[in-house]
Amino acid sequence: MAKLSDKENTKVPIGNTAGVATGRVQGNLVVLPAEYAADFLLFCARNTSACPLIGVTDVGNPLVPSLGRDIDLRFSVPKYRVWENGKLVSEPSDVADLWRNDLVGFVIGCSFTFEHALLADGIPLRHIEQGTNVAMFRTKIQTEPAGIFRGPVVVSMRPFQPRHLIRAIQITSRFPMMHGAPLHVGKPELIGINDLAQPDYGDAVDILDDELPMFWACGVTPQAAIAEAKIPFAITHAPGCMLVTERENREYAIL
Amino acid sequence: MAKLSDKENTKVPIGNTAGVATGRVQGNLVVLPAEYAADFLLFCARNTSACPLIGVTDVGNPLVPSLGRDIDLRFSVPKYRVWENGKLVSEPSDVADLWRNDLVGFVIGCSFTFEHALLADGIPLRHIEQGTNVAMFRTKIQTEPAGIFRGPVVVSMRPFQPRHLIRAIQITSRFPMMHGAPLHVGKPELIGINDLAQPDYGDAVDILDDELPMFWACGVTPQAAIAEAKIPFAITHAPGCMLVTERENREYAIL
Repeated sequence: MAKLSDKENTKVPIGNTAGVATGRVQGNLVVLPAEYAADFLLFCARNTSACPLIGVTDVGNPLVPSLGRDIDLRFSVPKYRVWENGKLVSEPSDVADLWRNDLVGFVIGCSFTFEHALLADGIPLRHIEQGTNVAMFRTKIQTEPAGIFRGPVVVSMRPFQPRHLIRAIQITSRFPMMHGAPLHVGKPELIGINDLAQPDYGDAVDILDDELPMFWACGVTPQAAIAEAKIPFAITHAPGCMLVTERENREYAIL
Repeated sequence: MAKLSDKENTKVPIGNTAGVATGRVQGNLVVLPAEYAADFLLFCARNTSACPLIGVTDVGNPLVPSLGRDIDLRFSVPKYRVWENGKLVSEPSDVADLWRNDLVGFVIGCSFTFEHALLADGIPLRHIEQGTNVAMFRTKIQTEPAGIFRGPVVVSMRPFQPRHLIRAIQITSRFPMMHGAPLHVGKPELIGINDLAQPDYGDAVDILDDELPMFWACGVTPQAAIAEAKIPFAITHAPGCMLVTERENREYAIL
């Protein structure tokens, strides 16, 4: 961690980063051997809601200067996942020892980024109130395949009162690079989610009688594709434990 | 009807105007004696979602040139409602005989205007498919009172599949003068609607299992306020039988 600046806003949080570093863009991480990079770029190009790319490294280089002077993909994520042949093998807090000269890092916008704009508008977010990770689910919606990558779209879920739900659609539509507008609302069974109390990633949150669940495409989607592709080696962030960049949310807002 | 142009797009439709005169702005009508005009202007100013004013006549003048050269409020609505002491007394097809030198006409934007943009985006609208009027309901949401005017907010309801619902919020947000974004979605009981099959105005439509009802503030709201205020004389349009103007929808779109 010695490589990191000690500036407050670039400190690496300990656990999940929901509600952390207010105002800073957060990103999902995918690190792959270069031989899979072209397929993955195509996968992102074909699935822009789930995988809006906000940064790509040069081969072997863990730095992403466009996202911040101090961003080093070996250290800047609070918890990583290491994948071998599509299986999750460890969750280290840095990947310095695993870094290789053939790796390419991809950073994908994260919905935690627009949560600041929702909170600033007076819209409460249950998982932040409860101090937990957001709930994420695999759906029956399929990504558009690209090369070896295919699999389900993963979504994050947040419950809202109807008036907040309408406003949340307006606000998140302004952040297309952070997954933008939701892709589903209400009726989770229509997208293959049968139990909101059993998320596939993150933590369950309460949904009150006057609330509806709303779903955004999620940057954990590539992890499902990595598992399905069974590629020999990959690194990702652990769901909810995001790369906190030095870019500001407002830089990614349209309109 | 002799005063009307024979241009196709300014012909007065026979009945309800949902899906009629595609591309033309539609309006709700309220005509009041001048002594109530100041109160009503204030009512509109305080309830802009329900009552976005797109035209106001001079006292005694039935013309609204800003909405079209051929608009004459005595003839240009396919079905009127005449109110005496807050009671509906007749539904004539013109009000030439009832016009007085002390009347002021108010035209309020109508959600039928943005339906064209929804259809153009590939979003089906059940009441148009079924050839019926839109369903409208009195809610338990109260308007902000102004002088003698007070009463419930009336809403129009349209059912949508979730993906269309999200898109419909984006699209209608672009039309603030046509009621703009919806004010409620799902859970009709939260706004005092107990039976979607029993609208207070217009026609019931089917709501399928994969759909959610969405609700927009409606320009019939003043009719509830007129009934409650029991003012001696008023004229309105009949719900769903709108003033079709010569203005184009796109002129009222923001962004």
